Amino acid sequence: MLNIETIYDASKVLSEVARKTDLILSKTLLEGHEIYLKSENLQLTGSFKLRGAYYKISKLTEEQKKRGIIACSAGNHAQGVALAAQKNNIKATIFIPATAPISKVEATRKYGAEIRLIDGVYDDAYKAACEFQKETNGEFIHPFDDEDVIAGQGTIGLELIQQLPDVDAVIVPIGGGGLISGVAYAIKHLKPSCKVYGVQAQGAGSMYKSYKESKILELPTVNTFADGTAVKKPGQITFDMCNKYVDDIVTVTDDEVASAILALMERQKLVAEGAGALSVAAAMFGKLPIENKKTACVVSGGNIDVNILSRVINRGLLKSGRICHLTIELLDKPGQLRDVSSIIAEYGANVIRVRHNQGGENTDINDCFLKISMETRNAEHFEQIKQALIDRGYKIASSVQ
Amino acid sequence: MLNIETIYDASKVLSEVARKTDLILSKTLLEGHEIYLKSENLQLTGSFKLRGAYYKISKLTEEQKKRGIIACSAGNHAQGVALAAQKNNIKATIFIPATAPISKVEATRKYGAEIRLIDGVYDDAYKAACEFQKETNGEFIHPFDDEDVIAGQGTIGLELIQQLPDVDAVIVPIGGGGLISGVAYAIKHLKPSCKVYGVQAQGAGSMYKSYKESKILELPTVNTFADGTAVKKPGQITFDMCNKYVDDIVTVTDDEVASAILALMERQKLVAEGAGALSVAAAMFGKLPIENKKTACVVSGGNIDVNILSRVINRGLLKSGRICHLTIELLDKPGQLRDVSSIIAEYGANVIRVRHNQGGENTDINDCFLKISMETRNAEHFEQIKQALIDRGYKIASSVQ
Repeated sequence: MLNIETIYDASKVLSEVARKTDLILSKTLLEGHEIYLKSENLQLTGSFKLRGAYYKISKLTEEQKKRGIIACSAGNHAQGVALAAQKNNIKATIFIPATAPISKVEATRKYGAEIRLIDGVYDDAYKAACEFQKETNGEFIHPFDDEDVIAGQGTIGLELIQQLPDVDAVIVPIGGGGLISGVAYAIKHLKPSCKVYGVQAQGAGSMYKSYKESKILELPTVNTFADGTAVKKPGQITFDMCNKYVDDIVTVTDDEVASAILALMERQKLVAEGAGALSVAAAMFGKLPIENKKTACVVSGGNIDVNILSRVINRGLLKSGRICHLTIELLDKPGQLRDVSSIIAEYGANVIRVRHNQGGENTDINDCFLKISMETRNAEHFEQIKQALIDRGYKIASSVQ
Repeated sequence: MLNIETIYDASKVLSEVARKTDLILSKTLLEGHEIYLKSENLQLTGSFKLRGAYYKISKLTEEQKKRGIIACSAGNHAQGVALAAQKNNIKATIFIPATAPISKVEATRKYGAEIRLIDGVYDDAYKAACEFQKETNGEFIHPFDDEDVIAGQGTIGLELIQQLPDVDAVIVPIGGGGLISGVAYAIKHLKPSCKVYGVQAQGAGSMYKSYKESKILELPTVNTFADGTAVKKPGQITFDMCNKYVDDIVTVTDDEVASAILALMERQKLVAEGAGALSVAAAMFGKLPIENKKTACVVSGGNIDVNILSRVINRGLLKSGRICHLTIELLDKPGQLRDVSSIIAEYGANVIRVRHNQGGENTDINDCFLKISMETRNAEHFEQIKQALIDRGYKIASSVQ
């Protein structure tokens, strides 16, 4: 059984390779609150997964190490295992569904692991990994339901207590539950009064549902933008530990996660992936009773594709009224584009795209549409511009902000 | 005159308020090199400017403090001064050109400073600040050409030597030169063998030119995307210190800075502003002789507007072939859109926008253009798709990647 000495041992072993990531105070993420960010997005490989994988591997016998290790993952676990194997000088074979983003595959390969790209989804890759395990008798490194893996993740709990002895509450993202099991175990042993809360994405709430109904449930499908937590069924060990050590589990929506990612970028200069921002989303959107409590959020990882990051930013800009789209119905006579442009310029908005279309299907033959995208300060600023256009006789066909 | 004891004193004074920012090792920013990032983008206010401003204010007499302080800035200096004044419980009046981004104005206001928005550009705001200074006899806090300010910035040099005693080279962004003056002074006193290099944006190379020609030069205009460094003329003190303590100064292009920002986000999970990424750009693009040297880059700040960040990402995605735009000339007959879509799908690219236009001015009446934007893996992937379309008889009118 896991005990606190094992986590101390993991901490010692990890001091060779893992970063003791910074705990960063934010006073702006939640007005009037001190929110501390445990920045595991700044960990080597871009997530906490290195901790569990490395400790697990360090505990293998020489015989086991010789046979090599096997993992199945499309994401952070793959990179964690690959780097841990490289640091231990042992062979890793990692099964990845062929649909995984090329960037994650390349990052894993860079750490020297052998990659097997398997056609299909995660389950197909998992099946292939199991067959390979039977053939080679290699060691399969489970992404979460393993006590050594959990002990490795638990070192984050030790660091938290050292870095912020008077912490009152810790918020931890949940996928399969390995991270929160380790953190909760460490925290509850060192400081039982400190609350430990878990957060899952609404579209992938397998541990949430299992916890609430006190039995392990399997979801038919998972769908979330926090892809690192898309786990259909919690582990047995992690489920038991959550039941025993976690004070509550809540869920957040994908939109809330996206807002948290944007806030972390703008206010804290940190890039977090969806899974990594779950804890901050829960704090920002009032999901947990943390008033007047020194609260630490584990930002578990930062491996987000920049394509997706770009979409998160654009969506956030739209939602906060900082990018707006306006369709104006014009009479098709000279000077109107100039006139509209000057009104917008007068109000200090920055035009980023213009399209001018004559004759749509639902319009008179003379009508003309002007679509303008612009950068505005906020929703109010946009309203002022719209009103100024209306006051000058223009008809707003549609507006998006 | 500045001496090392003053910088130690500044370090003690700053321990009350400033973060001792993390030094983060990156092995991926420059293949085969150990690059250490001094993460001042994670400093309070999002930049190093707090250090100099706070130390300067701490040295004022009670009488001076009572009269209040004055600053002129559209950026990081404004926020640094405002927070420093708030922490010292004194009044700050900050002059900001009305053209400054609203987000920076609001951030400064949040720290309790009184904001005077002045119509026009920086020079106009500066003039207004000087008049106000004469009226009130308040203390004007210079953004760089001040020994106490320089001593405050120099604390970064002390921390660097503590955090990485065997550092061989330090790369520092230059605007007016306050940061590098302090850092170079500290480094050269504690470890003379360590090289100190400065970096400026090509479009704002006032210190670069002055350093190379050994006299202070004023640029007629400055134009760079690293707006925090857009200074037309170096200070007298900072120019003298650069001459004495800095080993070399180089410049980087805006495109190189944009690539560095993207690399910091993708590989290090850190948000840097243009000025903040100058040092990393110089390292990444081989501007300095740092082979086999333990090199520290000061990432001086992270206050970049997300609008701009979004553009940097999109440009970076285009440049690395991960977002591509394709214009295909179709014959206007049924089934062509479906056919093109299936070719793209077959190759695993993700379509993000489609426009279908009939009859452009340079085309036959029957011709039709299909503009497709898509996410691809890299430039090679895009080439494969283009070739497949050509092989099936389509004519590529234009392509952008």
